[in-house]
Amino acid sequence: MKKFEEKTIQSQSIFTGKIISLKVDDVTLPNGKTSKREIINHPGAVAVIAITENKKILVVEQYRKALERSIVEIPAGKLEQGEKPIVTARRELEEETGYTSDDFEFIQAFATSPGFADEIIHLYVAKNLKKLEVAAQLDEDEFVELMEISLEEAEAMVADGRIFDAKTAFAVLWLKNNYAFI
Amino acid sequence: MKKFEEKTIQSQSIFTGKIISLKVDDVTLPNGKTSKREIINHPGAVAVIAITENKKILVVEQYRKALERSIVEIPAGKLEQGEKPIVTARRELEEETGYTSDDFEFIQAFATSPGFADEIIHLYVAKNLKKLEVAAQLDEDEFVELMEISLEEAEAMVADGRIFDAKTAFAVLWLKNNYAFI
Repeated sequence: MKKFEEKTIQSQSIFTGKIISLKVDDVTLPNGKTSKREIINHPGAVAVIAITENKKILVVEQYRKALERSIVEIPAGKLEQGEKPIVTARRELEEETGYTSDDFEFIQAFATSPGFADEIIHLYVAKNLKKLEVAAQLDEDEFVELMEISLEEAEAMVADGRIFDAKTAFAVLWLKNNYAFI
Repeated sequence: MKKFEEKTIQSQSIFTGKIISLKVDDVTLPNGKTSKREIINHPGAVAVIAITENKKILVVEQYRKALERSIVEIPAGKLEQGEKPIVTARRELEEETGYTSDDFEFIQAFATSPGFADEIIHLYVAKNLKKLEVAAQLDEDEFVELMEISLEEAEAMVADGRIFDAKTAFAVLWLKNNYAFI
């Protein structure tokens, strides 16, 4: 899938951070002209639609500095270097919710912002949740509040803007589509 | 919605580009400790689920340098400064597909990558499409191929990875949920 490929003429590294890095690539366009592409590299992430035995989903409220507000999201987190997404998925579920599961199923992967970033989210559904006896530790700069919500509550949170990110918006629709089967 | 708010101690601008800019904020965490947040500012974008009279959707294939591959997406584009999302939505539909509409309905807005970016996508559905007599001009560094696909074809493209971004993944689920009503 290389249709309209843009070949790199040169690539300039601008910033390398803790989570993201930024580069500017000079590229040759399909018509032979040149342009610049501003590109964020990100390690990738997972997100988990975690379903309780009452068919509720686990969500966490957390502050998102980029948006300068708190939003409600499904459990999610970045891949550590070399980590398989399914390993990250279980770890993030444990850290953010205090539940674990041996019943993870891969749903889909998607790029969140293909216009400027390479971030890919690997989305899983987890069922047959078990409460951990000893809670897993969050990252030291992470503060979240766990909630267990019904599909109706999730839809109300979309309507009032508390659910406001792409992966969670997708999760709510997915839940609606699959509610009869879970 | 300021739960777990992180107050800015200082903000350092790293890069200002054509499309995105990057800053690093020092913040005070809810427990009084400090941390750094790497933040991308983006003008925001729109995306359009454009439905033909045969209940197909319009999608465009385009190369995404960040991913180093081409993917199939619903028509989308960035807000110009001060532009209302509905105006961007009509413009991008016209530029990328050669169709226009007077029948736009707002579906939902979502943040694509709240962990590091403030990009928000405003999603619309457009019906009663009309072919433009004079095609609108794409941006000079933009190359897209238009396709008209059924829900079944869209689902096959999700399965084979040609549909691979969050807004289009959302659109396919939305279409599935609303197919009886459109």
